[in-house]
Amino acid sequence: MATAVNDSVVINEVGPRDGLQSQGKTLTPRERLELIQRLVNTGLRHVEAGSFVSPKAVPQMAGTDEVFHGLPSKDQVRYAALVPNMKGYELAVAAGARVVNVVLSVTETMNYENIRRTVDESAADFERILERASAEGVAGQAYLAVAFECPFEGPVNPEVVRHYAERMSAAGAGKIIIADTIGAANPTGVKAVLEAVSRVIPLSRVACHFHDTRGLALANVLASLNAGVREFDASIGGLGGCPFSPGATGNVATEDVALLLGSMGYDTGIDPQALVPVVRAVQSLTGTELGGKSFRWLSQQYDKQQGGGSNGR
Amino acid sequence: MATAVNDSVVINEVGPRDGLQSQGKTLTPRERLELIQRLVNTGLRHVEAGSFVSPKAVPQMAGTDEVFHGLPSKDQVRYAALVPNMKGYELAVAAGARVVNVVLSVTETMNYENIRRTVDESAADFERILERASAEGVAGQAYLAVAFECPFEGPVNPEVVRHYAERMSAAGAGKIIIADTIGAANPTGVKAVLEAVSRVIPLSRVACHFHDTRGLALANVLASLNAGVREFDASIGGLGGCPFSPGATGNVATEDVALLLGSMGYDTGIDPQALVPVVRAVQSLTGTELGGKSFRWLSQQYDKQQGGGSNGR
Repeated sequence: MATAVNDSVVINEVGPRDGLQSQGKTLTPRERLELIQRLVNTGLRHVEAGSFVSPKAVPQMAGTDEVFHGLPSKDQVRYAALVPNMKGYELAVAAGARVVNVVLSVTETMNYENIRRTVDESAADFERILERASAEGVAGQAYLAVAFECPFEGPVNPEVVRHYAERMSAAGAGKIIIADTIGAANPTGVKAVLEAVSRVIPLSRVACHFHDTRGLALANVLASLNAGVREFDASIGGLGGCPFSPGATGNVATEDVALLLGSMGYDTGIDPQALVPVVRAVQSLTGTELGGKSFRWLSQQYDKQQGGGSNGR
Repeated sequence: MATAVNDSVVINEVGPRDGLQSQGKTLTPRERLELIQRLVNTGLRHVEAGSFVSPKAVPQMAGTDEVFHGLPSKDQVRYAALVPNMKGYELAVAAGARVVNVVLSVTETMNYENIRRTVDESAADFERILERASAEGVAGQAYLAVAFECPFEGPVNPEVVRHYAERMSAAGAGKIIIADTIGAANPTGVKAVLEAVSRVIPLSRVACHFHDTRGLALANVLASLNAGVREFDASIGGLGGCPFSPGATGNVATEDVALLLGSMGYDTGIDPQALVPVVRAVQSLTGTELGGKSFRWLSQQYDKQQGGGSNGR
């Protein structure tokens, strides 16, 4: 029952960056642009298109400058680039990026394991990037990773998330993205973290990034919606992570988020069924079996509508 | 983050009836009792144990009287029997059932397709059963099927659900179970139906029954929880329906509901990991691939804890 709730929700597609960067197979910039074109064709208007990291560290993101130069429908789509440091920021801006993302892990062990710095040191680095972006008219956004639970330290105190959300916002981040990096969040924890963050930043400037490792991502999306969040990251077909099962450990699938939101009456601009051929194309491109929790059902519906026989009745 | 919410939620296991009745393989009463024993061993205290229907119509439920005579821990577990009519009611009570379920489809087409009667005629039949049960000290419960969407008639008006909930309650049903028979519900619709029903029955006497066909079951559980519902049907491993994919079209899986509720801090009395070997046992018994959305992750955790190597790291 699609009861109109008269409200729009943004789906931010992260497949071309967060999704692809952990894949065994590296796509060429041309293939990545093909993927992005398909995504944009479905109506997606927020896309994380790549990362300006060292190609030695992340070969999957090599040639992101080429991707940015070739991006389609730039006037209609908000493309973001991940930047790990000031050099990355400069490369991103030189390639035409107008939205840059920084990613801060909010627990010491996680941050140290990742980049051998304290959280405070990293926060200071990102503050400089966000301040410079502000000064240069570039939109800065800050991810707060392992915001609910850290694989090393366990549950994270919501006040810690609030603290860094406030710092990143003060440095110029227009948007704060609360990320459940390991897929360990639950609706009670989501509510607690969002309540803490909402004390320092309006939730209209907060997005959520969930992983579906334990099958709880859509429940967490619903908890965030109920709290007032109106933007969610998602990855086509659940692309990302190191899946041992289709869609099981990666990002929450774009089709799942689009179906949940659409069926609830939210306007996302995306027809979930239109994502079916894109998931299939990404499967071909990456050689990975993909598909979120709704994919089998959506595929059936899509094939029936196309008059295809295999899954129809 | 398991934040204590100081609240108990009942999981009603329907695998031995709703789950098994659609399986290609028919289990013997002895096998069904083995399954029930395993379920009870995990802490489940509400179990739908069988159905007193004609064995010609539903051979999978043949010998339900034998099952009821052999039920373990009868003093600790609330076992329910589905009864399609007065004859079924009498057989159930004769076999020792103290809780009987009737199932009313609330749309005309669905009810007619199923049993060639109008909804009103069926409602009257069930009223007689519920009244007799009340008089005889047997607990009567009423399912309202296709309560959100009907495969023939589309979305269902919440006022229709309210109407039949009120009738069944007035006839003596101590519990009303709102069932998303085809897995088409969404949180907006769930909220609307529960609001309508709560005007005539306290939600402490309402349970919800969701299918995970579109991957939205846990979001619907969360919406029901938020509305005040504290009892949910679930089926071990998602057993039930006619799955084309593990857990994809059947009942919401017990392990998924237990994980969601437990991680949110609700007390269900069930350790989700303890369900892993039971899912595996049911796979062996039925020859069906099973497992809810959390099953892969739970299996990894379980095997790691058991010291098993295959899924550990």
